[in-house]
Amino acid sequence: MTNTEQQNQMANAIRFLAIDAIEKANSGHPGLPMGAADIATVLYTKFLAHDPKNPHWPNRDRFILSAGHGSMLLYAVMYLSGYEDISLEDLRNFRQIGSRVAGHPEYGHAAGVETTTGPLGQGLANAVGMALGERLQNARFGDLINHYTYALVGDGCLMEGIAQEAISLAGHLKLNKLIVLWDNNDISIDGAISLVDSTDQIARFKASGWNTIKVSGHNQAALERAIETAQFSDKPTFIACKTTIGFGAPNKGGTNKVHGSPLGAKEIAETRKALAWSAKPFVVPADILDCWRLAGLNAAKKRQEWEEKFATFPMSERVEFERLMRGDLAGNFDSIIDDYKEQLAAEAPFVATRKASEMALNVINEVVVETIGGSADLTGSNNTKTSQMRTISARDFSGRYLHYGIREHAMGAIMNGLALYGGFIPYGGTFLCFSDYMRPAMRLSSLMGLRVIYVMTHDSIGLGEDGPTHQPVEHLAALRAIPNHFVFRPADAMETVECWQLALKARKTPSTLALSRQDLPPLRQDYEEENLCALGAYELLMASDEAKVTLFASGSEVQIAIKAHGVLEEKGIPTRVVSVPCFELFSQQSVSYQQALIGNAPIKVAIEAAIRQGWDQFIGSEGVFIGMNGFGASGPIDELYMHFGITCENVVASVEEKLEKISKEETK
Amino acid sequence: MTNTEQQNQMANAIRFLAIDAIEKANSGHPGLPMGAADIATVLYTKFLAHDPKNPHWPNRDRFILSAGHGSMLLYAVMYLSGYEDISLEDLRNFRQIGSRVAGHPEYGHAAGVETTTGPLGQGLANAVGMALGERLQNARFGDLINHYTYALVGDGCLMEGIAQEAISLAGHLKLNKLIVLWDNNDISIDGAISLVDSTDQIARFKASGWNTIKVSGHNQAALERAIETAQFSDKPTFIACKTTIGFGAPNKGGTNKVHGSPLGAKEIAETRKALAWSAKPFVVPADILDCWRLAGLNAAKKRQEWEEKFATFPMSERVEFERLMRGDLAGNFDSIIDDYKEQLAAEAPFVATRKASEMALNVINEVVVETIGGSADLTGSNNTKTSQMRTISARDFSGRYLHYGIREHAMGAIMNGLALYGGFIPYGGTFLCFSDYMRPAMRLSSLMGLRVIYVMTHDSIGLGEDGPTHQPVEHLAALRAIPNHFVFRPADAMETVECWQLALKARKTPSTLALSRQDLPPLRQDYEEENLCALGAYELLMASDEAKVTLFASGSEVQIAIKAHGVLEEKGIPTRVVSVPCFELFSQQSVSYQQALIGNAPIKVAIEAAIRQGWDQFIGSEGVFIGMNGFGASGPIDELYMHFGITCENVVASVEEKLEKISKEETK
Repeated sequence: MTNTEQQNQMANAIRFLAIDAIEKANSGHPGLPMGAADIATVLYTKFLAHDPKNPHWPNRDRFILSAGHGSMLLYAVMYLSGYEDISLEDLRNFRQIGSRVAGHPEYGHAAGVETTTGPLGQGLANAVGMALGERLQNARFGDLINHYTYALVGDGCLMEGIAQEAISLAGHLKLNKLIVLWDNNDISIDGAISLVDSTDQIARFKASGWNTIKVSGHNQAALERAIETAQFSDKPTFIACKTTIGFGAPNKGGTNKVHGSPLGAKEIAETRKALAWSAKPFVVPADILDCWRLAGLNAAKKRQEWEEKFATFPMSERVEFERLMRGDLAGNFDSIIDDYKEQLAAEAPFVATRKASEMALNVINEVVVETIGGSADLTGSNNTKTSQMRTISARDFSGRYLHYGIREHAMGAIMNGLALYGGFIPYGGTFLCFSDYMRPAMRLSSLMGLRVIYVMTHDSIGLGEDGPTHQPVEHLAALRAIPNHFVFRPADAMETVECWQLALKARKTPSTLALSRQDLPPLRQDYEEENLCALGAYELLMASDEAKVTLFASGSEVQIAIKAHGVLEEKGIPTRVVSVPCFELFSQQSVSYQQALIGNAPIKVAIEAAIRQGWDQFIGSEGVFIGMNGFGASGPIDELYMHFGITCENVVASVEEKLEKISKEETK
Repeated sequence: MTNTEQQNQMANAIRFLAIDAIEKANSGHPGLPMGAADIATVLYTKFLAHDPKNPHWPNRDRFILSAGHGSMLLYAVMYLSGYEDISLEDLRNFRQIGSRVAGHPEYGHAAGVETTTGPLGQGLANAVGMALGERLQNARFGDLINHYTYALVGDGCLMEGIAQEAISLAGHLKLNKLIVLWDNNDISIDGAISLVDSTDQIARFKASGWNTIKVSGHNQAALERAIETAQFSDKPTFIACKTTIGFGAPNKGGTNKVHGSPLGAKEIAETRKALAWSAKPFVVPADILDCWRLAGLNAAKKRQEWEEKFATFPMSERVEFERLMRGDLAGNFDSIIDDYKEQLAAEAPFVATRKASEMALNVINEVVVETIGGSADLTGSNNTKTSQMRTISARDFSGRYLHYGIREHAMGAIMNGLALYGGFIPYGGTFLCFSDYMRPAMRLSSLMGLRVIYVMTHDSIGLGEDGPTHQPVEHLAALRAIPNHFVFRPADAMETVECWQLALKARKTPSTLALSRQDLPPLRQDYEEENLCALGAYELLMASDEAKVTLFASGSEVQIAIKAHGVLEEKGIPTRVVSVPCFELFSQQSVSYQQALIGNAPIKVAIEAAIRQGWDQFIGSEGVFIGMNGFGASGPIDELYMHFGITCENVVASVEEKLEKISKEETK
């Protein structure tokens, strides 16, 4: 066998593992693994610095399969390279419940899968985040971190808007160690790409400051030269690899028929013939498997060299590096937060929670050096940049603050990439209303269980004159709906720092901080050692007697509850106030705590400048809700709260009305 | 005054109306109106075919202020041109509750505002939808419809991902009557654009097949030549207009300080001096106002000519055109749906609701000729293309089906543009999970009250092996959270056509149809004249005696409720089944209907393969919920339903457990 023949057979090993696994599962996407097998073979056997036996090695090259439907490509190369989490048995269980090899690559299932992909364009933006992470760590730790990030993208990834946001930011930052390989197969699900797109992708990437290369995706020698060239660029590189989707399938290859369905027995037989592959299903000839495994072993040598180099680093640097990569906070984190809480208790500042967030971050960013802050062009409004943070730029990666530009969606996905990379806790800001723009990325933070913190200011009609396009109404409910996502809505400066503390300690859960534009009075004026927000909801004010009324509220509306408490108690109506900074954490408390906190007051009222959805768990379907039931309006804040009846007066009136109704029913 | 001086003063009239209104409101964005005043002056006085007295004239040129924060630019030119809905008094009420001139342009507030803008990038994509609408109507009605669509965009619009989706599709479709003017002021909120972006915008648009022009945005003669050139292009045109943000403000102009805050008295005084504008606040010198009004009158002549031409059209064509523009459905629509319902009752097909949707569309698209179907590259999966529909392409706009490509977000916003344009009912498909990708556009459909129909298939874990990235869990709740949005989840073919009927008749409310991938049995086998889905929820099966149990369910889970009904009744437990195709419509029913339907059965169970949020309004916080409480998994459908316990057996077991608990409590 010539070298070329051998390399071709190595690619065919990918193709047939994909074909066989998809056929057995009777479900899956053979088109990409077959079309991109040559690309993957070159990348994994000639370039990728990785160690299949140590998949978490920090200085490994990252490979992101952005076109996640081609998952069998990734699983096949991982099996072939010798990753222990993916055996032949796993491949036989492709797409079955509990299998490590799920329908789309899932972070956390098999070690070595760098990110969860499938929703198109996300992987490309994750890769930008990782390539950024590499530059940031390189600026901190020198040559200890110095590697490439590769992404394989399809037309779908490139057509999604998020791709443009990621591409333009990568070009702007000159992330030259990012190499994107385009599976340029001219086919989409609906048919030929020419049906839906005429973009000159090379010109498009050039316009964003990328290095670009065109190459045949089935000429391994040419691919090798292309990647080699890319490695020496001072810009990120886009390699357009012209491929045939489902390469090797004589009838379905080159068409959309091979994209997302098993080939079928007949076509598989003909493909075996066409590619001269005589091995049985799930069998890789020993010589071919040996070549793959040898490539894996060879690649791993770089890790051994790295370990030796790492051992020579000063102890303190090693300890810090390892702490960061483990994701542990600095040992004195909690005590510093405690000190700050004491200070807050003394100062009792009357500030917007977005400002309180900045104040907390000023303390946090001093001790949590792994935070990478940012905003989608609302830095001054989101209050996300603290004094410690210098701006990250193409010329200087030693900063900690990224101006993401007006790119919310990429911001979310890049933060996911940073969190996946390790060693960072990314947070980024925009207006809560525009969380909609990055929701797919926020969902993936939750699905992957990443510590990413979304700083969402201007969290209600309280933002005033910008009007309903900028006023969130349904967003709190919509974000609370996402599983494994903490939505914090602190009521004052004290709750704000508590929520930040919880967000930073939630290693496997992303957080959204919903923060006010408007100033809010201090409500918690005593220092409490306990983080009360950790309970999700807690009693802020007791009733003077057996409670007739419980007022539940979050964020900027807690002050209304407190005012109403005063009025109602004055009128002889025993009233409790419960602050509800986080639904999700409340649902994690014991049933007895939950029941006790909700209590038995005959009248339950929830107050939130947003829709009711979700509040019934506190107030029941009979409860009174004071909030919004439609979109907001453009106007000054005080007038808006009056206009929509989110006022102390309305709370009191509603309670009295309800009391009257109850007493009437009782006298019946 | 020379002609040039006059034109400059006309632009200054815009600048000072903006300055004065923003100063009075003490809130707003002067930067854009001041920077783009020359562009707007040239466009409105030299090109725009419109009639301020007849703002709904169908063949008017459309002008979209995509950079919606610059709303005062639009309001000022509308006032100056003579639009009756915007008086000086209105401008004095800028950003006040109930004002026609809201913080951002709001569709429906003042006639002549073509769309609601503010969330960046949306307006550009709306404009693509309108330019498409123009070509489609031109293909149908010939020269009766033949006009330009102009959009003014800022850097924010261009950086958003949705812009790329819209730009690439517009280029692909060669929408040559679309002219995009870029307010190229080099400033973003965080600072200079160079802080966040290095894109060569001209090259980027060229890569997507656009004609491009560069011009000074303050040289009105040059702007005039540029727009003239653009009008003759066979491609859409992008005009990069180099401007100074806050043009004329001597200290703040050219900086981010002028973007989003009032100038302040001192800077205003200096700006008046710098621009030689001596008029008092809110005063436009009579000669300048006359020039503006004359321009408005001149522009209106085109409408008069058009009316004369229209009068010569055959009566039948005029009647049809006017029906379409009014948004009325064909007179026989309901009777055709009724016939189809009778047919369905007889055939009782066992099909997926996505297939049922296609069957319904086959009937609908025959009579509702104004539908424009499409899909974001999932045509075969969304079942959105029916036999009547030919593909729309750059060469042929007589079709009715658009392959949107992998561009969900632009699809939503383009559908908004088509609905705003008039004469169309757009519907478009993707997987329900990817509604997240277009949520900002869906929200705007709701806020504007547009009849846009989102066909969202693969609506639960029932999609199977593609796994959690593709399985919606929180999406039903998240979409139900949006005000003024019908989320339909039909249970069988009969409910599917009923939901389609409701969606098509909802003139001021967008709809989402959540449809199953998997086949579902027919549940409603009798023909009912009444559209039962119009109730939002209705009793599908009665209890044999006073109900002990009510099972609420939607979509694919109604069959589970029916099965459980059988088992429970068999066991002597009287059970009702309520089908819940639409929460929002249910909430619009009378309180008495709602209470009666929910009923008093001691055990209430909801079954939906999604999260619980929102269901408490039916079952109370004590009710039993059978559904999801986290993300899904990759696996075959039947195993997934077993794995997550969404089964008849689990419903029955939960009911029995609850019954036992109740009887224990009663015997205590």
